[in-house]
Amino acid sequence: MRDVVIIGIGDIRVGEYWDKSLRHLAHDAIMAALKDAGVERVDAVVVGNTLASFLAEQGHLGALIADFVGLRGVEAVRVDAADASGAAAFRWGYMAVAGGLADVVLVVGVEQMSERSAEEVVRAHTSVLDQEFEGIHGATPNSVQALLMRRYMHEFGVAREDFGAFPINAHANAVGNPQAMFRRAISEKAYARAGLVAEPLNMFDVSPISDGAAAVILCPADKVNAYAHTDKAPVRVLASAVATDAVAVHDRKDPLFLQAAYLSSHAAYTQAGITPRDVDLFELHDSTSIMAALSLEACGFVARGRAVHFAREGGIARNGLIPISTMGGLKARGNPLGATGVYQIVELVRQLRGDAGDCQVKHARIGMAQNLGGTGATAITHILGIG
Amino acid sequence: MRDVVIIGIGDIRVGEYWDKSLRHLAHDAIMAALKDAGVERVDAVVVGNTLASFLAEQGHLGALIADFVGLRGVEAVRVDAADASGAAAFRWGYMAVAGGLADVVLVVGVEQMSERSAEEVVRAHTSVLDQEFEGIHGATPNSVQALLMRRYMHEFGVAREDFGAFPINAHANAVGNPQAMFRRAISEKAYARAGLVAEPLNMFDVSPISDGAAAVILCPADKVNAYAHTDKAPVRVLASAVATDAVAVHDRKDPLFLQAAYLSSHAAYTQAGITPRDVDLFELHDSTSIMAALSLEACGFVARGRAVHFAREGGIARNGLIPISTMGGLKARGNPLGATGVYQIVELVRQLRGDAGDCQVKHARIGMAQNLGGTGATAITHILGIG
Repeated sequence: MRDVVIIGIGDIRVGEYWDKSLRHLAHDAIMAALKDAGVERVDAVVVGNTLASFLAEQGHLGALIADFVGLRGVEAVRVDAADASGAAAFRWGYMAVAGGLADVVLVVGVEQMSERSAEEVVRAHTSVLDQEFEGIHGATPNSVQALLMRRYMHEFGVAREDFGAFPINAHANAVGNPQAMFRRAISEKAYARAGLVAEPLNMFDVSPISDGAAAVILCPADKVNAYAHTDKAPVRVLASAVATDAVAVHDRKDPLFLQAAYLSSHAAYTQAGITPRDVDLFELHDSTSIMAALSLEACGFVARGRAVHFAREGGIARNGLIPISTMGGLKARGNPLGATGVYQIVELVRQLRGDAGDCQVKHARIGMAQNLGGTGATAITHILGIG
Repeated sequence: MRDVVIIGIGDIRVGEYWDKSLRHLAHDAIMAALKDAGVERVDAVVVGNTLASFLAEQGHLGALIADFVGLRGVEAVRVDAADASGAAAFRWGYMAVAGGLADVVLVVGVEQMSERSAEEVVRAHTSVLDQEFEGIHGATPNSVQALLMRRYMHEFGVAREDFGAFPINAHANAVGNPQAMFRRAISEKAYARAGLVAEPLNMFDVSPISDGAAAVILCPADKVNAYAHTDKAPVRVLASAVATDAVAVHDRKDPLFLQAAYLSSHAAYTQAGITPRDVDLFELHDSTSIMAALSLEACGFVARGRAVHFAREGGIARNGLIPISTMGGLKARGNPLGATGVYQIVELVRQLRGDAGDCQVKHARIGMAQNLGGTGATAITHILGIG
């Protein structure tokens, strides 16, 4: 296997784009990434997307987007792993370059959700659950995560208000990220009085419906000089791992332990030859506050039942033991589902390059991203490094 | 890159399954493939599917199917390339094994279309076109292909009746295939009087709405003895190539030349070190008769404008110059969209093993499969060989 590096990144500000269609969003991120890398041609385009088939009734995104950005003819496909589609697309790109099947691969994650009503979006998003055993009872992604939160509170004696540490951190970090959807801090007081979405989840516990697109360009480490025309240092992909679990939460032995996140992160640690202590920052999947807590625990950063306390004590802050959501996370940067996994990679690259501006984590050398699908039934972990 | 072989295949008879859901169809094909290979565990599951998000509102098929067949925890994703999703899933599996990222990979293509009305299926299937520039005008996959057929008739002076050579060959071959949906021959007379679907396409020109599932198991060529517990000879993957074109037919320079099929097949010939003359049989994408003709031409088996005559003269028959649709093709075996590409691989393996029964092509050593997405905007070609 060849060593793989990221030589270009691009993204658009997460938000609501009423004047553009999906392909335009992808285009803007792709052009930024090509420019960043100083690359004009690629061997393959891999698209991460979750909901376009529902919300735009548009499939065939590989060929569609490749052609639209002027790359007609190249290999192009779309990869789908529910909310983890962005990271799954990145994995295709990584495999193609690592295995020697392609030299320069463009990975783009794109999602457009705001053109449809919230009802339509929630209905479409419920497709990431087990429709025959969860959706059929009226469950939605947020309502299942609300059940997990309630169980966590019961099991570990944690108060609802204590979960605020996650969105408060995420929003504080997003202030410094020009690409974030919500660039404003929130207070404990604001969190405490926020309206409920699915009890005990409140408005600040859940990530927003959003549009976005992010892209990265990969090539073999030993061919950077041949392909990249840029001053930016290449960022190395140290690990790539996918694991799964039962889609329906009630089928899991322990609903409060994200087995797929555990398997995927620990496989990644082994590949990279590191332990959680070596990770300088962790872009985790904070689709809701409870998922952030469960991810931290499953990935070995904190003992079970301790994540919320750890967060309250500042462990997740930019200068904490393990900074998370350093540019706003899903909560405040925004969560355009199939693009989210690629935003995580883009943000890690910014951090490792030292280009994260006000969001910069000092001395960041190793970063980890984990993209979850559904209620954690798919977990895809990538570890990046520099220097 | 490592050499990759297919060590197990499995499929269910294509048809209508009102009593089973998608996951059950996939299960049955997967169990057959695991048994065929004598394998119990795999490193990854890759799912090819096109329409489940529309027709069953079910996404997240990677984790869902892996768990349902007793493989909870493994890497699992779904790959989407419109109608070519089955071959795209196979490509993920091939990449993972060739690149050394996984040893044993299970690829399954599955589709369930018959539970919904024809109107719903056609609407969902139109997602493979460019919705903003084709679908918006009321175009459907069949209606666009009807336009291509009419143009072909005009351009090359071919009569509508002459296209019958394709479905007549496909149906004749399907008689010998126990897994085919339509195991009955049709006559020229029956073809001539068939009702029109989208003029000039008639009922026998178009492939049916169908349910199906097919699976294959891949491993590295040098580890067959470690993993496969079977007497079946491993079948080598000699080439794997993806290419694309404009999704909207009106955006192409020459709508009658399938540029993606040309690029993908010729890249595959180069990888395998062969020419079209070396191919003993070709499972092409005969979603309609016109697509079969255009594929034969783009892949270099016959000169432009000659495919229909070639077919009428027996060139595509089991003992012809290039046998196609040897087990019924999309037309008569059936076309469960996201499963079709995997059925093509399964059938090639049967042929190369000498296990194709009444459908057997004599002395078959090299077989090619080409799965098209939309109106040929994605073309994925695989070449397999034995001995």
